[in-house]
Amino acid sequence: MHRTISRDSINRDTTLCISLSGRPSNIGTRFHNFLYEELGLDYLYKAFTTTDLPGAIAGIRALGVRGCGVSMPFKEACIEFVDVMHESAAAISSVNTIVNESGTLHAYNTDYEAVARLLTEHQVPSDLDVAVAGSGGMAKAVVAALRDNGFRSVTVVARNRATGPALAEQYGFAWRPERGDLRPGLLVNATPTGMAGGPEEGRSPFDAAAIGRSEVVFDVVAMPPDTPLIRAAGAAGKSTITGAEVIALQAAAQFALYTGVTPTADQVRRASEYSRA
Amino acid sequence: MHRTISRDSINRDTTLCISLSGRPSNIGTRFHNFLYEELGLDYLYKAFTTTDLPGAIAGIRALGVRGCGVSMPFKEACIEFVDVMHESAAAISSVNTIVNESGTLHAYNTDYEAVARLLTEHQVPSDLDVAVAGSGGMAKAVVAALRDNGFRSVTVVARNRATGPALAEQYGFAWRPERGDLRPGLLVNATPTGMAGGPEEGRSPFDAAAIGRSEVVFDVVAMPPDTPLIRAAGAAGKSTITGAEVIALQAAAQFALYTGVTPTADQVRRASEYSRA
Repeated sequence: MHRTISRDSINRDTTLCISLSGRPSNIGTRFHNFLYEELGLDYLYKAFTTTDLPGAIAGIRALGVRGCGVSMPFKEACIEFVDVMHESAAAISSVNTIVNESGTLHAYNTDYEAVARLLTEHQVPSDLDVAVAGSGGMAKAVVAALRDNGFRSVTVVARNRATGPALAEQYGFAWRPERGDLRPGLLVNATPTGMAGGPEEGRSPFDAAAIGRSEVVFDVVAMPPDTPLIRAAGAAGKSTITGAEVIALQAAAQFALYTGVTPTADQVRRASEYSRA
Repeated sequence: MHRTISRDSINRDTTLCISLSGRPSNIGTRFHNFLYEELGLDYLYKAFTTTDLPGAIAGIRALGVRGCGVSMPFKEACIEFVDVMHESAAAISSVNTIVNESGTLHAYNTDYEAVARLLTEHQVPSDLDVAVAGSGGMAKAVVAALRDNGFRSVTVVARNRATGPALAEQYGFAWRPERGDLRPGLLVNATPTGMAGGPEEGRSPFDAAAIGRSEVVFDVVAMPPDTPLIRAAGAAGKSTITGAEVIALQAAAQFALYTGVTPTADQVRRASEYSRA
């Protein structure tokens, strides 16, 4: 699919939104620019990386950049540079969205909101035992969303002996360094395992036995949408929730925060497909 | 004329160039984006304003913005934030172009280069008496270019009793607060008088008598290209050099510094026409 924007639409008044991450993908840039055109909004989006987070945020303020998506490794580091921590970010001490309101920087976490909403929409029973792989920024969003959706039996599975136990303890959940003999009904991958281009590309964080004993499998990895974990779960007839769903929902929430316009479900679906093409 | 760029061309690797000015126009944004498309370069240009110059320049460094055009009121204020002052900027202590070479900020003044080149191209005789109206950043570029092109009899005409005499003295030229009985062969306007949207729109900095006695009239005001001064000079049969020529040449020089690609004269002409459409 080849789509174009009018160059005349890029002008001194065009509103710039950006993202900051250690290793930028093109997903956000394509998702947001697709919807700007679709909705006739005079906005422009581009992904950036930086080795100077305070300088980048100073630039956001000084240049009047309207919004900034925040990814690894800046989700916690940016907290000290924003002005207002909204509940979604404050609850998990992790920011993935900054909105610049006339120089005042508001911080949100739309990953957390997206995960909570997907658990509800997919009607995942809250009495399932849950294993969450990972203890980073996305794991924090997942664990908080599980707690807020009424899940009680959650185990954080993470080799990191600092962040793993800390995350579990914060929410009154269990921690283990390995899955071992757990037989959870809901498996959640909140690590980068399986991510295209990453060091564990092509791998699954859960083995076939664990997938076979589960009811629902949830992978936060968005690229590729059909990760090894999602493919194995699908082949085993399990219900799945994909990282592509998370990224589309969280990006749609960012879009609404930046522009004040809420795209329709169909627009989000098409923008999401375009963003991964 | 309606032209488009491929949205697919905006991606994480697209190089951003910007401008900073107190009151941004659309000329630079349209000029550079026209040539990026014409030459198939993965660049994007947008004008910004700021009330926090150090923050904006921190952002240029931190986000890896490749180039920044600098206009009033930042041409002198930005000097303390750049790393390398090249001759064109150092000679007149005025910057209109910043190039970011892997985090090292290089400063140039392409206005100075453009004025010097236009005096040569138009073969303006250096034995003419010259009156330069103004003593701001553009007047500094004009006076330095006149000196370097061999002009000896130059009078700075400026009401400002601090900057006017200082500029004249720096180059061994004369200063007067008013033109008075001078009969210069070359009239140069380096003030905003006649600029569209400015407080002296529709006015000429030199009267009909002065224009009638001159041989060549040079106006640095680019919008409109046919300022009252240029129109009066043309009607009186004088040779003219316009601000549109200055802005096109200086923007082409910026373009070459940012991209490493020198556009042809025809490409510059078409970009310049597009930028003012």
